[in-house]
Amino acid sequence: MTGLEDLDTPAVIVDLAVVEANIARMADRARARSVRLRPHAKTHKIPELGRLQLAAGACGLSLAKPSEARVFADAGFDDLFVAYPVVGKERLLLELADRVRLAVGVDSEPGARALARAFHAAHRRLDVLLKVDVGFHRVGVTPQAAPALARLVAELPGLRLRGVFTHAGHAYAAPDAAGVAAVGHDEAAILCGVAAELRGMGLGIEEVSVGSTPTAFHALTVPGVTECRPGNYVYHDASQVALGTCRLEDCALTVLATVVSVPAPDRAVVDAGSKTLSSDPLRPRPGGHGSLTGYRSRIARLSEEHGVIEVCPGERFEVGQRVRVLPNHACVVSNLHDRVHALRDGRVEAVWKVAARGCVT
Amino acid sequence: MTGLEDLDTPAVIVDLAVVEANIARMADRARARSVRLRPHAKTHKIPELGRLQLAAGACGLSLAKPSEARVFADAGFDDLFVAYPVVGKERLLLELADRVRLAVGVDSEPGARALARAFHAAHRRLDVLLKVDVGFHRVGVTPQAAPALARLVAELPGLRLRGVFTHAGHAYAAPDAAGVAAVGHDEAAILCGVAAELRGMGLGIEEVSVGSTPTAFHALTVPGVTECRPGNYVYHDASQVALGTCRLEDCALTVLATVVSVPAPDRAVVDAGSKTLSSDPLRPRPGGHGSLTGYRSRIARLSEEHGVIEVCPGERFEVGQRVRVLPNHACVVSNLHDRVHALRDGRVEAVWKVAARGCVT
Repeated sequence: MTGLEDLDTPAVIVDLAVVEANIARMADRARARSVRLRPHAKTHKIPELGRLQLAAGACGLSLAKPSEARVFADAGFDDLFVAYPVVGKERLLLELADRVRLAVGVDSEPGARALARAFHAAHRRLDVLLKVDVGFHRVGVTPQAAPALARLVAELPGLRLRGVFTHAGHAYAAPDAAGVAAVGHDEAAILCGVAAELRGMGLGIEEVSVGSTPTAFHALTVPGVTECRPGNYVYHDASQVALGTCRLEDCALTVLATVVSVPAPDRAVVDAGSKTLSSDPLRPRPGGHGSLTGYRSRIARLSEEHGVIEVCPGERFEVGQRVRVLPNHACVVSNLHDRVHALRDGRVEAVWKVAARGCVT
Repeated sequence: MTGLEDLDTPAVIVDLAVVEANIARMADRARARSVRLRPHAKTHKIPELGRLQLAAGACGLSLAKPSEARVFADAGFDDLFVAYPVVGKERLLLELADRVRLAVGVDSEPGARALARAFHAAHRRLDVLLKVDVGFHRVGVTPQAAPALARLVAELPGLRLRGVFTHAGHAYAAPDAAGVAAVGHDEAAILCGVAAELRGMGLGIEEVSVGSTPTAFHALTVPGVTECRPGNYVYHDASQVALGTCRLEDCALTVLATVVSVPAPDRAVVDAGSKTLSSDPLRPRPGGHGSLTGYRSRIARLSEEHGVIEVCPGERFEVGQRVRVLPNHACVVSNLHDRVHALRDGRVEAVWKVAARGCVT
C-alpha cells in the first residue's frame, strides 16, 4: 500500500476515520430529531463519499448544479435535490427526472414558468422547493413574498410544490458560536413560519429544509424542520474551527505539500498555492491561507503555485520537508483537484476521483 | 456552428481575434528588442494556444510545475522551462529531459544538490536557471547571495547553469502604470547586474530571463535581457486593465453566465460563483469579483455557485438573461474549467480542452 511518502505533492489527503466520524455524528443528530439528512455533495463531489453518507442514513443528496446531479445519477444515486434556482437547463432536468426522484429550487416567477413550460410540454411534473431568504440576501424570496410565489407555483401545470428551503450563509459571518446558533434558530423559525402560512393557504408543504454545516445542529432542534442539508461537515476546515462548529481534530481534509524554498529565516515557501488551496479567505475573520499541522506558522500569502509561510520565531522549515496544510475552505479545494487520497492508519487506502469536479453548469 | 446561445452556462469564452492580437503584439515587442519570448503557459494550459504562441515566434514555453510540462511535452512541445524551484520531482524531470530541451529553476543549495544527485547518477546533465529575488520576496536568492549559489551550481556534477531569472510579482501591487514601469526597469537592471557579476566570476550566463505581463514591455527595453516570460498577456483580465497594462478591449477571456435570480431591485444573481471565477481579488486594489460587459454594475460577492451583482441605479437585470463577466484573474479561471470556447465573429470556432488543468504537482 502507498504511504504519504510515496505521493507527489501537493496532494489532497482525506482522513477516513475522521470522515466516518463526521458522517456518523451528523446522521445521529438528524436521526435523534427525526429530521431527514440530505447532505450537500458539492463539498466532496465524490460518489464513494455520497455512498458512505447514504449508508449512514441520509435520504438522498443535495447538489448545486444539474451537471453535478447528472454525475451522481450516473453513479446510481436515485434521490437528488438541486438546491439552486435552476434557469435554462430544462433539457437536462427532463432527462434527470426520468432517472431519479428529482427536485429543484425555484425563487422567481420567470424561473418557475420556464420549468413549468418544459415539464408540462413533456407531460411530466417536476418537484420544486421554494427558496426563502432568511437573512443571507443572496437568492430566495422574502418570507413576505413567499405566499404569492408559492400559490403561482402550486397552480402551474408541470410543477409540484414539494416544500420550502433555505440556506443561512450569513452564519459564516457570525462573530462567535452563540451568533452561529442564533442564526440557525432564526433560519428554522422563519422557514417554519412560512411553511405554516402556506399550509394555512391549503398548500401541501411536505418538506421544510434547512441548510449549512454551522447552523445544522441548531436548526435541527426547531420543531417543524423536516430535512437538513449540510455539506462541509464531511470534511470541515479551518473556517469551521474558527466558527466553533467543530474541533481541529474533526477536520478530515488536508493538503500534503513540500517546502521548496527557504529564502529567509522568516519565510518558507511550499508548492501549494491558490491553484491548490484556492484564495478563499478564512472565515469569519481573515487569517492567512492555511495553518500547518504542528506549527504556529501559517501560510500568509498565496501565488498560483506558491504558499508563502510567515515563519514564527522559534520555528524552522527545511527545503524538501513535507507539511500538512489545513485549508480555509474545503469545498473549493476539492473542486480544484482531480482526485483525493483516502488515508487510514497512515496508508492510502483508496484514491477517489472527484467525479463532479468542475461541474458548474 | 455553435453560437453563444447554444452554450450551457457558465462557460468560458475566449475571443480568438483578441488572443491573436495579444500574441502578435507581445511577439513584435520582443522581436524588436531581439529578446527571446518564452510565454508562461500556466495562464492557458492549452496546447493549441501554445502552438499559436510558437507560430508567432516564441522560442518555447515556460511552465510552473513538472506535471504541466509533461502535458506540453506529450503535445509535442520540445523546449520547456519549468520556472519554479522544483524539489522532489527528480524522476519526472529525468523522464522529461529525455524528451525535450529542459531547464528548471533553482534557488537553494539543498534543491540544487538533490537535482544534481539524480542527474549525475543517471549520467545526465540538467540545465538550471538561478532564481533571483528582485523585490517580490517570494522565492529566489537575494542579488547578494546569488554569486555563492551560482558558483556551487556551476560546480555540481549533473547540473549546467544556463542563466538567471526573476519574476517581479510586486508589480501587481504597484499604485499606477508608472509604478509598474519602475518595477519592470528595476527587475531587469538588478538581474542584468547579477548576470554581469557572475560572468565576471567566469560563469557562462547565456540566459537573463525576466517575467510577468505587467513588467514585460518595460523589462524588455533594458540591454542585457535575453528572454522574457509573460503569461497573462494571452488573455489579460480586469486586473491588467486596472494596472494599465492593457485596454478593456484587449481582454480575451470572459465568462458567459445566466441571471438566475433577481430577488431585489438592487440585487441580481448569476450562475457563476467562486468555482467558476475564483475568489482572487481585483488588483492592485480590491473592487468586486467581476465586471459585466455593457454594465456599470459589478459582481460584488461570490458564493461557490452564485455571483451576486450589486445593481447600479438605472440598470436592470432579468431572470434568464445572459451576461458576459470579465474576471479579476484569468489564470485561475482557466484552471477551474475543463474546456474553453474559442469564439470568432460570434460563433464557437473551436472547443479547447484545458489539457494541463489541475496539474499542480
